[in-house]
Amino acid sequence: MKLKVYADRMSQPARAVIIFCKLNGIDYEEVRVDISKLQHLTPEYSEINPMKQLPAIVDGRFKLFESHAILIYLACSYPGIPDHWYPADVCKRSEIHSVLDWHHSNLRRGPGIIYQNIISMPVIGRRFNPEAVAEGEKFLSASLSKIESFWLKDKGQFLLGGNKPSIADLSLVCDIMQLEVLDEADRDRLLGPYKKVEQWIENTRSAANPHFDEVHKILLKVKEKRQNLRLKGANNEGGGSAMKKPLLSRI
Amino acid sequence: MKLKVYADRMSQPARAVIIFCKLNGIDYEEVRVDISKLQHLTPEYSEINPMKQLPAIVDGRFKLFESHAILIYLACSYPGIPDHWYPADVCKRSEIHSVLDWHHSNLRRGPGIIYQNIISMPVIGRRFNPEAVAEGEKFLSASLSKIESFWLKDKGQFLLGGNKPSIADLSLVCDIMQLEVLDEADRDRLLGPYKKVEQWIENTRSAANPHFDEVHKILLKVKEKRQNLRLKGANNEGGGSAMKKPLLSRI
Repeated sequence: MKLKVYADRMSQPARAVIIFCKLNGIDYEEVRVDISKLQHLTPEYSEINPMKQLPAIVDGRFKLFESHAILIYLACSYPGIPDHWYPADVCKRSEIHSVLDWHHSNLRRGPGIIYQNIISMPVIGRRFNPEAVAEGEKFLSASLSKIESFWLKDKGQFLLGGNKPSIADLSLVCDIMQLEVLDEADRDRLLGPYKKVEQWIENTRSAANPHFDEVHKILLKVKEKRQNLRLKGANNEGGGSAMKKPLLSRI
Repeated sequence: MKLKVYADRMSQPARAVIIFCKLNGIDYEEVRVDISKLQHLTPEYSEINPMKQLPAIVDGRFKLFESHAILIYLACSYPGIPDHWYPADVCKRSEIHSVLDWHHSNLRRGPGIIYQNIISMPVIGRRFNPEAVAEGEKFLSASLSKIESFWLKDKGQFLLGGNKPSIADLSLVCDIMQLEVLDEADRDRLLGPYKKVEQWIENTRSAANPHFDEVHKILLKVKEKRQNLRLKGANNEGGGSAMKKPLLSRI
């Protein structure tokens, strides 16, 4: 029975798992769980993941959730996965665990909060929460600063000084990519001060392409939709002469 | 060169690492980094862990922080560690990763917030924040409920239905133990509704004794100090007849 990956590509950890499968030729079936339709909250999905979050996998009779655990499981269970993704060396592997653990309490809490408040909540009719956004920006900024000054050490192109990406690069970069749905000015305000981080995102994207761009295309669509809605709003308010700004994106 | 564990026993993840070393006969040196004296914020400690958190280890030339990563490293690097702590079987191991990852975004955010606000902040002269405590209680209650209904499945004595503890049991139980510094009534209000959780804490304590109790003794001291301070306050306010309540604890 083929590996099933339960995902919505709007979920950053789900994207990391999908990209990992595609990059490593893992034969899988992507089962869409549409977050915007609250399908992750259904009793059917609770049978897959009782925590009601994405992604989750079912591999034969084995069920697993939490994206880091899934990435490690795939790297260890499927044949032919290059060592750089999750090295066999215990010290290198431990450092990757350290980045992934740090990620949970730091970077993960930034882009997610910003995205939820600016993009998701208005869609599902919930109030934009400026305090939560400020909190998200604080986490994001502190985390990017640590990535820039510590995790991207030495002259390596990737975290921990590596010359090839690990599952930690993929996981963290997919999180930061959530900011691509913001306006260019906001995205640049948040990421611009971190030049090494920007280069590392580009390195990871490049190492994981063409799959990286393909899986992230959904973000471009959301950004476009958001921009069109706003233009429509401006037109309705008499701003008919407003020029449609060109849609910039790295994807 | 002997393994160095940088710790303050008031830190719940530091306790998990110390207990793991003691239980498994790992020869280590405990280097006290006194949180109450802000020693974790010194430039010297930043050389060990630039994130300025506890615990961290130095093993020869290898430095590592994040307690889950440390527990896995120790289980994999030191000889003779029984398999149940971190099983070699890829599915069992993956489930343990899943619990540990879940822990970061759930249980970890409960007892820590409550402890910080009720115990630490008044000590370092910062204001008690009732909203933060309420947020901590919310996280704690939701997390305990998931442990009770999902992670403590089947008839096993430990998480994931195990009959022997894993590093996940040790890590999660050490976190919950932080509540032992609270008054009995508060502790019971928070933990009392979760009978399977209470039994599991006892099972883990019992499997990890005598080291578990020895390493947790510091919490009893803090509780005693807190109770004495309060009694002194009550006496100064004319409550001289207040009976000193017996100090209850499972430690």
